[in-house]
This record gives sequence, structure tokens and C-alpha cells, in this order.
Amino acid sequence: MTARHRIAVIAGDGIGQEVVPAAVECLDAVGARHGIAFDWHHLDWGSDHYRAHGRMMPVDGLDTLAGYDAIFLGAVGVPDIPDVETLWGLLIPIRRAFAQYVNLRPVRTLPGVPSPLAGREIDLVIVRENNEGEYSEIGGRIYQGSADEIAIQESVFTRRGVERVARFAAGLAAGRRGLLTSATKSNGIVHTMPFWDEVVRGVLADYPGVTGRQELVDALAASLVLHPERYDVIVASNLFGDILSDLAGAVAGSIGCAPSGNLNPEGKHPSMFEPVHGSAPDIAGKGIANPIGQIWSGALMLDTLGHAEAAAELVTAFEAALESGVRTRDIGGTATTAEVAAAVRANLT
Amino acid sequence: MTARHRIAVIAGDGIGQEVVPAAVECLDAVGARHGIAFDWHHLDWGSDHYRAHGRMMPVDGLDTLAGYDAIFLGAVGVPDIPDVETLWGLLIPIRRAFAQYVNLRPVRTLPGVPSPLAGREIDLVIVRENNEGEYSEIGGRIYQGSADEIAIQESVFTRRGVERVARFAAGLAAGRRGLLTSATKSNGIVHTMPFWDEVVRGVLADYPGVTGRQELVDALAASLVLHPERYDVIVASNLFGDILSDLAGAVAGSIGCAPSGNLNPEGKHPSMFEPVHGSAPDIAGKGIANPIGQIWSGALMLDTLGHAEAAAELVTAFEAALESGVRTRDIGGTATTAEVAAAVRANLT
Ligand SMILES: CC(C)[C@H](C(=O)O)[C@@H](O)C(=O)O
Ligand SMILES: CC(C)[C@H](C(=O)O)[C@@H](O)C(=O)O
Repeated sequence: MTARHRIAVIAGDGIGQEVVPAAVECLDAVGARHGIAFDWHHLDWGSDHYRAHGRMMPVDGLDTLAGYDAIFLGAVGVPDIPDVETLWGLLIPIRRAFAQYVNLRPVRTLPGVPSPLAGREIDLVIVRENNEGEYSEIGGRIYQGSADEIAIQESVFTRRGVERVARFAAGLAAGRRGLLTSATKSNGIVHTMPFWDEVVRGVLADYPGVTGRQELVDALAASLVLHPERYDVIVASNLFGDILSDLAGAVAGSIGCAPSGNLNPEGKHPSMFEPVHGSAPDIAGKGIANPIGQIWSGALMLDTLGHAEAAAELVTAFEAALESGVRTRDIGGTATTAEVAAAVRANLT
Repeated sequence: MTARHRIAVIAGDGIGQEVVPAAVECLDAVGARHGIAFDWHHLDWGSDHYRAHGRMMPVDGLDTLAGYDAIFLGAVGVPDIPDVETLWGLLIPIRRAFAQYVNLRPVRTLPGVPSPLAGREIDLVIVRENNEGEYSEIGGRIYQGSADEIAIQESVFTRRGVERVARFAAGLAAGRRGLLTSATKSNGIVHTMPFWDEVVRGVLADYPGVTGRQELVDALAASLVLHPERYDVIVASNLFGDILSDLAGAVAGSIGCAPSGNLNPEGKHPSMFEPVHGSAPDIAGKGIANPIGQIWSGALMLDTLGHAEAAAELVTAFEAALESGVRTRDIGGTATTAEVAAAVRANLT
């Protein structure tokens, strides 16, 4: 029996156009081995769409996406259009409309991929709150352009919002090494962080097998450089998770390979899978972009769609490809995007 | 002719009681060589004061401090009193009352001190905004304890506040390698960061010799791990500066040695000098704390008081001491606090 999944594909801008087809090939190949068929629906949204129509996606774009089982996104962003248009015209509205409140970012040292901290084994997951917190629309400016100008930004944390992401993170830790570190900044006057701590502590009471640890975000950033192997699951607010996940990726040497899942864990809405890297206009069109972040994001998608075995096989395959030396330039190799994808497919076993 | 300076000394909690006397010795020694005399006024403020009087410092503490040329602080914070009391009862009020709007944090690889990124030369300064931004008192909670609870934190950035710190940072860069990196997060909806960027850009127009660069804080955190030698001066908001300075210290291997100056650049009010590390209750009372952060903070104080030569001599002396192998345990040695201080004095030349 074949499982069929309808996937909305937004390759988007820059290298998104190269790494998405590479990953789709790999997903089709692993799918064929596990009785999984993908119906890929390619949507030509992104900056070209913006140039033609003044919008990153059609007015009814979110309604269109709602009908799919998942969204597979490459990258958005180009040098000549402000990020505020490209990101808030596509990425952020999708994260919010579909209550993708978990941004899941696994970070691992990968075989054959050089890390700045040679010889350390890193295997952690950052669970970033993805809908609220520091990324609120509330705020603005007064006395614009004058010497008296003031800008205000309001962070908004809700009990429901913190609780659900903490619960997801605790559940994940329970199935791993059982250690949940919560990033905080509750030693200052910041009102939202003691609240964050309280809610996380409350959630941990329901997970007796999970050891909770609270770390100040400044000390945690330092500690990720000094002792990255100590971490299992890290739960963090939207902004802290954004910073810590890039940092952890850099420490592991795998920032060009890093995947992410924007999850609606209840499955009421489609989840979205995208590499952590951006559209990389400097190398776009050359066929040399690293497709591993997109392929790994595809593995997260498989897992979320209920195909844990196929997901694990795909991960094993790209690790084997990396280990065998088929790597793009950004991680010390000479392979093209297509060569990496071919090596991943060849290693599916 | 002797220059005299009246210095308020708050050794404070934990290892503050050990590293401050060690640094005072070194400052007296270098002062004697340069015609500088310190009148040290020891104030027994901190957590013991809190236990005895319910306050970290007397009601008129700030008035007392106003009369000094500078404040030399060890550390505050103990396990049994909430940070909100110890920090907001002493550290933060001082930073604000005396318009110490610059938090200056030099980060360097030090001779003999192992860094996690072996073989990289790091020499940068973080200029952290120290009075406003994300550390505002504004915010709170509603529906406390209920499922509907919401917590709000308001970040407040003023044109005056951003401009003055950016101007300080640009001036500093002009006297160094001429590169100013500004940490931002203006690719999202966060209203305050495009404002920050605008003000920094405006200030840079007055410093044609300085090259300005804007980096997203997430990418900057990663880049500090991958290419720390690229940075000269980094200007950042209160929260971003807090995170980035701990991170950079960890990358350089010198977090236990890191100094800071809370500066009122106009000299209308006393500035305050303190190591970046905390009170370290776990090793307090053993005589093994690393005094370099406190000694280096003393060098920043000398510099700010107009004694650049004496400051440079003190830095050279502690670098020589470190290079000769006299190091505390946290940086791979076996020396005691007193032995390090003695070696620094012996290396003054
Ligand atoms: C103790 C805390 C309030 C403080 C801060 O965040 O400013 C500290 O982390 C620092 O960096 O000086
Ligand atoms: C592009 C930007 C808005 C986004 C974010 O901060 O969420 C990105 O940095 C990410 O991490 O997905």
C-alpha cells in the first residue's frame, strides 16, 4: 500500500531553486523504497512573484497552502527587496497562520564536516518558540526623524504559547537523553523571562524523567562554545532560539547543512520545512549550493508525516555521502549540488 | 607631581572579596611607578548588607558614590538571594544613575590562555548600550497564575540613547582598525532595530574613516565563532551586547579574564569598572579565583582616569605573567589568586 502526500513546494529565491529540486529527487527515491508517493505542487512564489504582482504570494496564498499535507520551502530574500517585504510577505505569515509554534532545529556534528571545535561530538536539538515573544507586531515610533524620536517594541508571551512549546520540548527530551535546558534572562528586570521560567517549570512537573536546567542566555551562548556536548534539548523564545540555533550550527560546523521544521504538532495545519540557510545570492545559479540542509529538512518532513524509518534512512544516506567525501565547497569539498544529491541517492540502503 | 584619585571600592560578594584586593595591590604598584595615588574607600555593600539591612546599599548609596572619581566593583550575587534583588539593588541602579551608557568589553586572545579555537588571533571590543533598550522596567503581567496569563516586556530605544553609544563606538573604531560592526535584527518585524540601524548609519556619516557594517545578530553570533578575527569594534544593544560579549569571551578563551567598564564618557558622573564574571560562589573563599578580569578592569579605570601609559603597562604586565605560566585553574594553571597578583606586580616594567 502506498502512502500519498500532497506537498506544496516553494523553491523561492536564489539557491532555493537549486537545492529544492535536489532534495525532491532524494525524497522521491527514499519514498519509492518505503511505499511513499509525493504529489509535489510547485508554487512560483517569492521575489519574482513580488516583482510581477507586488506580493510574495497571491492574496489567497494561505488558503491554498491550507489544503496540503506539508510545505517544503527553499529560501526567500533577494538583495534588492527589503527583507521586511520578503519575510513578512511569506515566511512569517505562514509560520503564524498555521500555528507552527515549534521551530525544530537539530544541530549535530556531521561525519567529514569540519567543525571549529575539532573533535567534539555535538548532538542537540533547539526547540524555538515560533509564534510570539519578541517577534510581535506591536510597537512603533514617535517623533519620527527628530532628536526626540523613540522606538518601542513589545514582547508578548502567553501562558498557552509558552506551555505548548515547553511541552513539546519536554516530550522530545524524554525520548532522547532526558535533559531539557531552558534559555532565560530572568536575572534582570525583563518581566517576561521569570514568567517563561515559571511556565517551563510547571510543564516539567509532568515529565519526571526529564531533568530541567535553566541557563541565562548570555552564559548559555558561552557554554555552547565551551561545552556543546552537554546539551540535549534546548527550549528558547523566538529571539533567543534564533540566535542560539545559528550559534550552535556554527559550533558544530554544520550551519550550511542545518535543517528546520516549523511544526504544528497537533497536525491541524500543515507544517513547513526549510533549511536554516538563506537564499545566498552570491552563489546562486552556479550549481554549487549545499543541498544537505534542504535534504535534511526533507527528512524532518518524512518524520513528521509518520515515516520515521524512511527519514532515518535518508539521514544515514546523506551522512554516508558526506563521509565518503562528496561535499560542497562551503564544507570543504568540491562537489556540485547535483553530485551531492546523486551520492545521497546512491547511499540509500 | 602626584595625581590623586578617590575610588569607591565595592568588593561585594563571593570571589569579589578576593580578586578586588589582588587588583588593588597591582593598581597601587603601577600607580607608584607613574605618580598616581589612589584613595581607596571600601564600602561593605552587597548581599551581607542586604541580609543585615534589607538593602544592597544604603538609601543614600548613590549620593555617596557620586562624590568619587570612579567605582571599582567586584561582583554581586549569592545563591540564596534572588538576582533581581542583588542586581537591581546595586549594579543596575548605578549604571543608570550615573548615565554609564557605554559598557565597554574588550575581548582578546591572551598569551598562554587556551582558546577553544586554537591558533586564532582575536582582538575586538564590544560596545554595549548600557542604559535602555531591552532592559527597560516597563512591562508586567495580567491574569496572573491563570491559563490566560500574558506577560509583556517593552523595549525602549531613544535616538539620544542610540546616538551617543554609536558615537562612542565609532570614535573608538576610528582609533583602532576602523571597522564598526553593528548588531541588528532588522530583517523581522522588530520595530526598534530598523531605528537602531538608521541612527547608527547617521552617526557613521560623521566618521568617514570608519567602515560600518550591519550584521544580523543571529549571523553575527555564528560569525564570531567562525571568523572572530574579522571584528574590530562591535556596537550592540543592551541585550545583544550582553549575549555577544559572553560569547566572544568564550571564543577567545578569556571569559574568566574579561574586564568591563561602565562608562559615562562625558565624565560628569563616576564610571564603574568590574570584571564580566560573577561572584562564583562555588570557588569563593579558596584563594584560587582568577584576578585577571579585575586587574584588567583596573587598567580600563586607569585609562579612563587619563593614565593611558600606566594602563598599558599594567596590561603588558598581566600578559607577561600569563605567558610565564602563572595562571589560575580556570585557564589551565595551578596558581593562586595571590600568586597571580604577585607575578603581575613583578612584571611591571
Ligand atoms: C547580571 C546581569 C543583570 C548583567 C546584565 O545582563 O547586564 C550581566 O549579565 C552583565 O553582563 O553585566
Ligand atoms: C529571516 C528571519 C526573519 C528568520 C527569523 O529570525 O526567524 C531567520 O533568521 C530564521 O531563523 O528563520
